[in-house]
Amino acid sequence: MALQLEAIVDALGGELHGDGGRMIERLAPLQSATAEALSFLSNPKFAKDLAASQAGCVIVSAPAEEAARLRGDYILTPDPYLYFARLTQLWKARHAPPEVERIHPSAVIHPTAQVDETARVGPLCVVERGARIGAQTVLKASVTVSENCVIGARCLLHPGVVIGADGFGLAPSSQGWVKIEQLGAVRIGDDVEIGANTCIDRGALDDTVIEDGVKLDNLIQIGHNVHVGRNTAMAACTGVAGSARIGANCTVGGAGMISGHLTLVDGVHVTAGTLVSRSILKPGHYTGFFPFDDNAAWEKNAATLRNLHALRERVKVLEKALARNDDKTS
Amino acid sequence: MALQLEAIVDALGGELHGDGGRMIERLAPLQSATAEALSFLSNPKFAKDLAASQAGCVIVSAPAEEAARLRGDYILTPDPYLYFARLTQLWKARHAPPEVERIHPSAVIHPTAQVDETARVGPLCVVERGARIGAQTVLKASVTVSENCVIGARCLLHPGVVIGADGFGLAPSSQGWVKIEQLGAVRIGDDVEIGANTCIDRGALDDTVIEDGVKLDNLIQIGHNVHVGRNTAMAACTGVAGSARIGANCTVGGAGMISGHLTLVDGVHVTAGTLVSRSILKPGHYTGFFPFDDNAAWEKNAATLRNLHALRERVKVLEKALARNDDKTS
Amino acid sequence: MALQLEAIVDALGGELHGDGGRMIERLAPLQSATAEALSFLSNPKFAKDLAASQAGCVIVSAPAEEAARLRGDYILTPDPYLYFARLTQLWKARHAPPEVERIHPSAVIHPTAQVDETARVGPLCVVERGARIGAQTVLKASVTVSENCVIGARCLLHPGVVIGADGFGLAPSSQGWVKIEQLGAVRIGDDVEIGANTCIDRGALDDTVIEDGVKLDNLIQIGHNVHVGRNTAMAACTGVAGSARIGANCTVGGAGMISGHLTLVDGVHVTAGTLVSRSILKPGHYTGFFPFDDNAAWEKNAATLRNLHALRERVKVLEKALARNDDKTS
Repeated sequence: MALQLEAIVDALGGELHGDGGRMIERLAPLQSATAEALSFLSNPKFAKDLAASQAGCVIVSAPAEEAARLRGDYILTPDPYLYFARLTQLWKARHAPPEVERIHPSAVIHPTAQVDETARVGPLCVVERGARIGAQTVLKASVTVSENCVIGARCLLHPGVVIGADGFGLAPSSQGWVKIEQLGAVRIGDDVEIGANTCIDRGALDDTVIEDGVKLDNLIQIGHNVHVGRNTAMAACTGVAGSARIGANCTVGGAGMISGHLTLVDGVHVTAGTLVSRSILKPGHYTGFFPFDDNAAWEKNAATLRNLHALRERVKVLEKALARNDDKTS
Repeated sequence: MALQLEAIVDALGGELHGDGGRMIERLAPLQSATAEALSFLSNPKFAKDLAASQAGCVIVSAPAEEAARLRGDYILTPDPYLYFARLTQLWKARHAPPEVERIHPSAVIHPTAQVDETARVGPLCVVERGARIGAQTVLKASVTVSENCVIGARCLLHPGVVIGADGFGLAPSSQGWVKIEQLGAVRIGDDVEIGANTCIDRGALDDTVIEDGVKLDNLIQIGHNVHVGRNTAMAACTGVAGSARIGANCTVGGAGMISGHLTLVDGVHVTAGTLVSRSILKPGHYTGFFPFDDNAAWEKNAATLRNLHALRERVKVLEKALARNDDKTS
Repeated sequence: MALQLEAIVDALGGELHGDGGRMIERLAPLQSATAEALSFLSNPKFAKDLAASQAGCVIVSAPAEEAARLRGDYILTPDPYLYFARLTQLWKARHAPPEVERIHPSAVIHPTAQVDETARVGPLCVVERGARIGAQTVLKASVTVSENCVIGARCLLHPGVVIGADGFGLAPSSQGWVKIEQLGAVRIGDDVEIGANTCIDRGALDDTVIEDGVKLDNLIQIGHNVHVGRNTAMAACTGVAGSARIGANCTVGGAGMISGHLTLVDGVHVTAGTLVSRSILKPGHYTGFFPFDDNAAWEKNAATLRNLHALRERVKVLEKALARNDDKTS
C-alpha cells in the first residue's frame, strides 16, 4: 500500500514543498513516523515533536511552515487536521479491498423493508417490517433497525447498534407497571454515524428524531422522542433521557447525562461526566463532575460536603457576631 | 388505521362525553394533536395545553373535566395516564400486522432449551443449552439467553439483550487474575421488560434473580447474584454491582450506580446520576450528583471543594478566636 | 454432579482435615450451604458465618483453622479465595457437557480470517477479513471481531462484544464533521476476558492495545488508541477515552471514566463512579464522586456548593476582620 505525494496533492490540494515522487507507505503520528510515513501537525502544542519527527513529509499550516522547512518535505494547507481527515478517506478508498456483497446473505431483511440499492447491509443485521435504509448507507455487522424506522443517506451504523427498540414508557397502577406501547418510530437524517452498541429508542406517539450530520459514539442511549439537532456530536457512554430536545452544533463529552424533557439550545457544550438536570438556554460550556483526588483527601472533603449547609450557617453566625463586636468596639 | 370512540370506551371503560361515532386515526400529544387524534391530560401542569389543543377528543380526570367540556369531546376516567397506557395497547393490538412465525428460522435454539409454545423468538436470537422461555414471552432480534437461564411468562426482551454472561469473578494470585467460574444462572420472573443491549450476569454460585414485574431500560448492567425485587424499575445506563439486593417498588434514575453487596429496602427512589455507596435501610428519595454550572463557575467551586476540609478548619479557628474575643470584651 | 473431597484435594492441593470420601454435590456460600456443599471463608469479617454454616466442608486459612475444626471437615490452604477460584474451574471442567462444535455453523467468518484450530467461535459471531483468533480462545454468541483485529490465546469474549469498530475521529469543517477513517486495528494479548456488550475501538493510525491478563467487565467502552497494561481490571460501565494510557495492575471501579490522552501509571486504583480528568503519576487509590444523601439534604448542600467560592471569600473577609480586631484589642 503506497501513494505518491504528488497523487495526494492532486486529490486533496495543498501546496507541496518537496519531492512529489516520494512514496508514502503509511500515515503516522509525528512521534512514531518513519521516512516512509506522512504525518501532520494540527495542534501548536506538539510543535516540538515536529522538529524531532522522522516523517518523510509533514502537513502543516503557515505558523509552522518555517519549522517544517528546516526538517524537509511538507504540505502547506490552512487546516492540517481537516486535510489529514480527508487524507485518511483517500487512503482508505485507495487501499480497501473491493466489497463483493451489497447485502450479506446472513442479514434478515423483511420483504416490506426498503433498502436503497446503493446501501450495504452487513452480516447478521436485522431490518424489520417497513424500515427504510437510504443511499450509500452502511450497516456493519449485527445492526438492528426496527419496524418503520428510517435511516437517511450516507449513514454509518457500527456493530450492535439498535435503532427503534421500545422507549421506556410505563404507567403506574395498583397492579404494577402498565406498558405504554411505543407507537412512534425513529427518523435519522443523512450523514449520521452511530457507534457500536448504541441504542436509539422509538417514540411513544411521535418519532424520535436525529438530524443530518449528527455523530454518536459507542454505548450511547437516546430515549424516546428525543430530538438531536444538526451536526451535534456525543462521546461514548452518554445518555439522553426521553423527550429532551438538544440543539444543533452541540457537543456532549463522554458519560454526559441529559435529563428528560429538557431543552438545550444550539451551541451548548457539556463536559464529560456532567449530568444536565435543567434546560440550558444560553450557548456555552457547562460542567458538573466531582473533581477526583487521592482517596483520603476525597473522604475528608466528602464528609465536609455532607454538612456544607451547616458550614454556611456557621459562617453566617460568625458574620453576625463580628458585626456585633464591631459595634461594641467602634 | 382507525378506531371509533365508542369501540375504545367499550374496550377500556371511561365515561364518554361526545360523539361515539367519531373516528380516531391516531393518538397524539395535546400540542400536536389534530381533529382526527385522541389525546390525554395527565399532568395538571399541562392544563394550558388542553384549551389550545386541536385534538378530536381528550382523556381527562375530574379536575380537568370543566376545561375539557369547554373545548369538545372527552373521556372521563380517574387516571388518564393509565387509561392512555391501556389505549396504546389496544391500538397496537388492533393495528399490528399478524405475526407469521413463532420462532424465526435464523434463531439458534439448543435442542435442550425449552421454549413455551406461545413464546416468540425473533431473528438471530440465541437460546442456549437448558434455558427456558415462558409463555407469551417475546425475544426481539439478537437476544442471547445463556445456559440454564430461565425467563418467566409475558416478558419482553429487546434487541441485543444478554442474559447469563459470566459475572465478573476474579481471584488475585501472584500470576495475575484467576477466573472464578460462574456456576449459577439467571432467574427472571413474569412480566419483566428488559431494554436493548442490557446485560444480566449469571450468579457465581447461586442465581441472579429478577422478580416479577421488574422493568429495565436500555444499556443497564446487572451484576452477578444481584436480587431485584418486584415491580422495581430502572432507567437507562444504570449499573448494579454484584450481590446488591434491591427491594420491591424501587426506582433508579438514569445512570444510577449501586455498589456491590448493598441492601436497598422496598420503596427506595434513587435520582439519576447518583452513586449509592452504602445500604439504604429507609424508604425515601436519595440523591447525589454534582450540580452542573457554566464551566468557569464550576472550576472555581471545584477548586474550593478540593480544599473544603481546610475551609472547615478555618471556620473552626474563627469560631475559637471569636469566643476568645468575646471573653476579652465581655 | 458430584466430586469426592479426596478428588478435589488431589487436583488442587490443600490439607484435608476430615472425610476424604465425602461426596460434594455443590459449591455454596457459607450462609446457604447444606451438608452436601463445599464452602469457603476468605474474608475474616464473615467469620461468624463459619460457625453457623451447614456446609459439609469448608475451605479456610490458618487464622480460621480453630473455628473450622470446631464445626467439622475443612481444607486448610494459604489463600482460600484463590483455592475456591480453582475449585470452580475444576467443577466446571468435570461437569460441563462436551462441546461438539468448534465453530458454530451460523458464525460468519471471512475466508482470510485466521481462527486457531483450538479456538471456539459461538453462534452468530462475525470474524472479519484478516482478523486472527488465538489458541483456546472462546468467542461466545454474537461477538464481532472486525477487520485485521488480533485476539491472543486463552481469551474469553462474552456475547455482544464488539472489537474494532471505528474510533470516534472527526475533524470540524465549515460543512460539518469530516470523518477520520480509522486505519489502525485492535491488538489483544493472551488471557484477556471481555464482558458482554463491551466495545474496544480500532485505532486511528496505530493500534488500540490491550495487554495480557486484562479483565474487562460488561458494557465498557475503550476508545481508539487506548493502551491498557497487563493484568489491569475494570468493572462494568467504565469508559476510557481515546489515547489514554493505563498502566499494569490497575483497577477501575464500575462506571469509572478516564478522559482522553491521559497517563495512569502502574498500580492506580480508581473508585467506582470517579471521573479521572488528569494524569495520575503516583500509584494509589483515587476517588471523586458526590456522596449521596436523602434528597432534601442533598438539595441544601448542592445549593450551597454552587456558591462555594463565595463562601470561601466570606471566610477570608472574616479572617481579615478578626485580625483587625485583634490588633485593636491587643
